[in-house]
Amino acid sequence: MGSEEVKVVSFWVSPFGIRVEWALKLKGIEYEYIEEDIFNKSNLLLQLNPVHKKVPVLLHAHKPIAESFIILQYIDEIWKHYPLLPQHPYQRALVHFWANFGDQKLLDPSWIAMCSSGDDQENALKVARESMEKIEEEIKGKKFFGGDNIGYLDIALGWISYWLPVWEEVGSMQIMDPLKFPATNAWITNFLSHPVIKDNLPPRDKMLVYFHSRRKALSSSLQGWFKV
Amino acid sequence: MGSEEVKVVSFWVSPFGIRVEWALKLKGIEYEYIEEDIFNKSNLLLQLNPVHKKVPVLLHAHKPIAESFIILQYIDEIWKHYPLLPQHPYQRALVHFWANFGDQKLLDPSWIAMCSSGDDQENALKVARESMEKIEEEIKGKKFFGGDNIGYLDIALGWISYWLPVWEEVGSMQIMDPLKFPATNAWITNFLSHPVIKDNLPPRDKMLVYFHSRRKALSSSLQGWFKV
Repeated sequence: MGSEEVKVVSFWVSPFGIRVEWALKLKGIEYEYIEEDIFNKSNLLLQLNPVHKKVPVLLHAHKPIAESFIILQYIDEIWKHYPLLPQHPYQRALVHFWANFGDQKLLDPSWIAMCSSGDDQENALKVARESMEKIEEEIKGKKFFGGDNIGYLDIALGWISYWLPVWEEVGSMQIMDPLKFPATNAWITNFLSHPVIKDNLPPRDKMLVYFHSRRKALSSSLQGWFKV
Repeated sequence: MGSEEVKVVSFWVSPFGIRVEWALKLKGIEYEYIEEDIFNKSNLLLQLNPVHKKVPVLLHAHKPIAESFIILQYIDEIWKHYPLLPQHPYQRALVHFWANFGDQKLLDPSWIAMCSSGDDQENALKVARESMEKIEEEIKGKKFFGGDNIGYLDIALGWISYWLPVWEEVGSMQIMDPLKFPATNAWITNFLSHPVIKDNLPPRDKMLVYFHSRRKALSSSLQGWFKV
């Protein structure tokens, strides 16, 4: 296994797609990158992920796999060198727990906060900041969530290091306060210093333009969303 | 491993908690069941799952694990006899994909449909019925999603066999039409005939009373929810 063709279908600024690329690069797996226009979806994407019609999709030996966390686990099971998940089932369960937590309780509310204003934004910011406190507790005393090396949870939370500052600028808000979260701040420095990470980030100026346009497009449709 | 004390903290009618119990019983693992009052949460639950404060929690050798899918994978990694997940990484990825799909695209909208009425209910029912079509395609030609035996995906989707009919009655709606979904209907019969499943289901009359009261309590707060 592992010798077959590998392709990644993604979108240049997707915080989910970049997870797949980071994982493959950390393991030194060569792949072909296929850029998808998510605003005008290709037949390829609709064929590979007919259920959700979303990026990223990993194609391995012509078989498609969707959803970034499922792809990460698949990659770790197929290519066993440089393991991303810990060995012990309990430690693995904790990694999955915090990865889900990061998406549901930090990424989603941060995204909503960026796209909203007023009370909606304040409600979302409250949730995001409380989640950041929990992340801070988890990273204390460690270089990476994975220990000495970047692991699954570092990849899962990696968007905090580079996407979140852009979202904060676009939404005129602060979630990741370096004075309140010094351990997370140190982790961000460590993470962004890693050659695989720093050489695989989209250009910040292009991201700012893109997310400003997303905020503009989504701000009305998200109104009142976060009260539920 | 596996010789230490096992406890399950759950709530008698939780479709998530029952997954953990089914998995343990299929593997023949003895456990102590601890009933939680989710409307008046115990210190034990707040201590075991301080982040989400939700059932189920598995306690194994005094270590708590939360979230039913994470628990299922943990159980399968600790007790390797009667494997719930397939052996090959690609087949495993597909199981995780459909398990997530079942929760996000069928369970959530079915629950919202039960708790709502009018346009909100119709919108949720449309999503749920479309998802049921995809489930039907997946089960065609198989006794169980796991093949000849009940596996991870059968456990993940098991609520369709017993919770969904109650929700349909409470919400005066139909999602699982046996004429439209004959393969799913046959699977339900197979699933409910299995001794581990049929002997581990909450009483239907008590479920009806409980979910009628949930519909009453939640119907106003969910209004307009499903338009987003």
